[in-house]
Amino acid sequence: MRKPKIPKGTRDFKPDQMTIKQEAFDKITSVFKRHGAVSIDTPVFELKETLTGKYGEDSKLIYDLADQGGELLSLRYDLTVPFARYVALHGVINIKRYHIAKVYRRDNPAMTRGRFREFHQCDFDVAGVYPSMVPDAEVIKVLTEILDDLDLGAYEIKLNHRGLLDSMLDIAGVPEDKFRPICSAIDKLDKEPWEVVRREMVVDKGLDEAAADAIRPFVELRGQPKALLATLLEPGHAFSAHPRGRAALEELRTLFDFLGSMGALDSIVFDLSLARGLDYYTGVIYEAVLKGAVVGSIAAGGRYDKLVGMFSGKDVPAVGVSIGIERIYNIMEEQARRQAQEEGCSVRETETQVLVASIGNGHQAQRMQLAARLWARGIKAEFGYKSNPKMDYQLGYALKQGIDLVVLFGESELQQGVFKLKNLVANTEETAPLDRLEDTVLETLAGMPARRAIFTFNSVKQPTDGIKNLKIAE
Amino acid sequence: MRKPKIPKGTRDFKPDQMTIKQEAFDKITSVFKRHGAVSIDTPVFELKETLTGKYGEDSKLIYDLADQGGELLSLRYDLTVPFARYVALHGVINIKRYHIAKVYRRDNPAMTRGRFREFHQCDFDVAGVYPSMVPDAEVIKVLTEILDDLDLGAYEIKLNHRGLLDSMLDIAGVPEDKFRPICSAIDKLDKEPWEVVRREMVVDKGLDEAAADAIRPFVELRGQPKALLATLLEPGHAFSAHPRGRAALEELRTLFDFLGSMGALDSIVFDLSLARGLDYYTGVIYEAVLKGAVVGSIAAGGRYDKLVGMFSGKDVPAVGVSIGIERIYNIMEEQARRQAQEEGCSVRETETQVLVASIGNGHQAQRMQLAARLWARGIKAEFGYKSNPKMDYQLGYALKQGIDLVVLFGESELQQGVFKLKNLVANTEETAPLDRLEDTVLETLAGMPARRAIFTFNSVKQPTDGIKNLKIAE
Repeated sequence: MRKPKIPKGTRDFKPDQMTIKQEAFDKITSVFKRHGAVSIDTPVFELKETLTGKYGEDSKLIYDLADQGGELLSLRYDLTVPFARYVALHGVINIKRYHIAKVYRRDNPAMTRGRFREFHQCDFDVAGVYPSMVPDAEVIKVLTEILDDLDLGAYEIKLNHRGLLDSMLDIAGVPEDKFRPICSAIDKLDKEPWEVVRREMVVDKGLDEAAADAIRPFVELRGQPKALLATLLEPGHAFSAHPRGRAALEELRTLFDFLGSMGALDSIVFDLSLARGLDYYTGVIYEAVLKGAVVGSIAAGGRYDKLVGMFSGKDVPAVGVSIGIERIYNIMEEQARRQAQEEGCSVRETETQVLVASIGNGHQAQRMQLAARLWARGIKAEFGYKSNPKMDYQLGYALKQGIDLVVLFGESELQQGVFKLKNLVANTEETAPLDRLEDTVLETLAGMPARRAIFTFNSVKQPTDGIKNLKIAE
Repeated sequence: MRKPKIPKGTRDFKPDQMTIKQEAFDKITSVFKRHGAVSIDTPVFELKETLTGKYGEDSKLIYDLADQGGELLSLRYDLTVPFARYVALHGVINIKRYHIAKVYRRDNPAMTRGRFREFHQCDFDVAGVYPSMVPDAEVIKVLTEILDDLDLGAYEIKLNHRGLLDSMLDIAGVPEDKFRPICSAIDKLDKEPWEVVRREMVVDKGLDEAAADAIRPFVELRGQPKALLATLLEPGHAFSAHPRGRAALEELRTLFDFLGSMGALDSIVFDLSLARGLDYYTGVIYEAVLKGAVVGSIAAGGRYDKLVGMFSGKDVPAVGVSIGIERIYNIMEEQARRQAQEEGCSVRETETQVLVASIGNGHQAQRMQLAARLWARGIKAEFGYKSNPKMDYQLGYALKQGIDLVVLFGESELQQGVFKLKNLVANTEETAPLDRLEDTVLETLAGMPARRAIFTFNSVKQPTDGIKNLKIAE
């Protein structure tokens, strides 16, 4: 028999990994909601024609579905194009929405560096006609709040403007039909040295050598936003004399002011080498990177004013950001494992509050009955599945899973109409009447200290000690 | 320009629909967590060979991906086969897991009746070697809790056992190689009259007429679980003399006892016509239907002891249930719309608590600054995007969105270092120092009555009245 396999470039998430991933989603969603975003959902596949002509050189990475009769379909490559299709299809005038969902790319997987063929994106976009740079500023503010809340370490947000790139190429003498291919080459400057990128421009893309060399001083411009902006706005600078460049600089001036008002300017680096590969951007663009990390960008976005119009013929300007959760997840998983090891605890896989356990043979139906009473009051409870579970096993299970309370009974308790409640945090035990089961548990839970949600409370040492102390009750 | 289209049989979810869908997911997830289930995730596509030979006649509904080089892939048809592949691949010994995710079927869509090509399933499964019927009972208990919590109206859970079906077919004289095709025919009895199903058996599937007629009295057996069980266990009954039938009845006796202990027997109907189309079931099977509804089954499941072994060669017995959320969602959406109409409110799309509004022209940067201070304290706030928003518009927006508080300022407030806080629920207004903005808002929020989460508080009448009263402040 062949061993079961999972498709290349994809992965399963195990329970402890899901706990961490869910925590990341919860933190990200709570920022989106804090900013008043609504949520939408779109199908995982779109008509093939919906995705055609939106991704430039990356279009080759799109997964197509087999032609089994009917429409030609492709798996979504990102959440931005489906969002634009949504806005166009439903005639939306304005919307601030988030969408967390999986996207698909037939890329060469590099899983240790967080590059997968199936991965989650967390997107936040604002579509609609608004005063210049207002939604752009909020989108970038949302990105900084998420990166702050996730606490992944120092980051910077590289920021540029397609209008500056275009005017820079124009000033350098690049013909307009080469703007997008040359942008794709510039986009590689974060991974490749200038000489390699220059060769791509000249050899692969047929750019005049003089034009390529004229680009170089521009893409080396990088600095604190307001300071670099002031330099570029000086009357002698090429940009300030170029209409498109001048307009882009004026937009950035407004944006930097707004970001300053919201306390979100400190992590921004104005970087003229940032180009972004995708065709659809039309204005400000940005990309977040963790300082000193090997994982590359963890979030990116920008303004795309013409994408909705490609579907409906009627432009709805829009701006947004996509956060790539896999790379963030890899860092969080590493952090959690290190912390768990240092503190001798483990990542919780369930939220169970009570284990219903029994002493002696049988009692399966009674364990079920007591658990059912707890469930009916909203208490998270498990009952032992084994016919004749040993006390060691039951308490060990509770400690390992981070279950704080154990409801315990045997034949004698049943006869007396009582049960025992073991508190594994306080290491105490009380006896209470069986008809007060639910209230006793609820009162005890209400009196317990808050715990760190995703970790079990116990140290590696505690379980064994705990079991020893508790075994006397068996 | 062609109008944008969405693939046939799929749909977008709009913000108010997402609120309702999320509420359904939250309720379902909270039952899963109440029972101590862990969560896992698997890719949306599997190797094509993983899905081959698992779904009987329904295999033709599987979506394949185009062969673009590399592995042959298919979109998952359900969450059960990927779960079995997961258990086999990772060598899992036992697990109680839930998984909420989309599945794909190239079916003829009937969207008004809740049949889609892309839809969510909510699955709960227990895999591992356990005493007879213990996990089976908990799975069915989970199903009843979910249907109770969702409050969709009266339902029944039809229940049968593959062992009874097989022994019934054996007793009726059906050859063993025809068991599964004949089961597929029996499975249609909830939609088709006996004569149509008989024709399928005899004409399409080549069953002897006498055998078909011998099946009929069996599939008409239906009743209260313990009563019907007692009848079938009587010494004179064909089942009690048939080894496989006898064993199945003994399992059901245990199951009904456990369900009784957990208070989950009332909604069960023991129904020998229930067959379930899928190949992989080996024991108890069940299907939940809403009484008097046209939507068909809303949940189904059963025991599948051989599926994991098909991947690993090593059986891990398992039992589970899949809840089809689209049909449930359609009912909840209808309920919500009716309730919203009756009470003159609407479904909330956001959770925003505060709108930061201003009086007079400009103040964009100040609105942003105040909103940023609220966000930093975890308060859900929006600021007006318009350059010169009218007071009518701002208050109307807050009321329509169900935002309870409005932070308001103009030039004179800024000069005095104060702001106004309008409480749209109490219809009051107070003035407070600007440096106490966050605390004032938090204190006011803490003192406000709890609200029904998914609806705006306002009646259709209130907004207009509210705006009239509040306009004096402009």
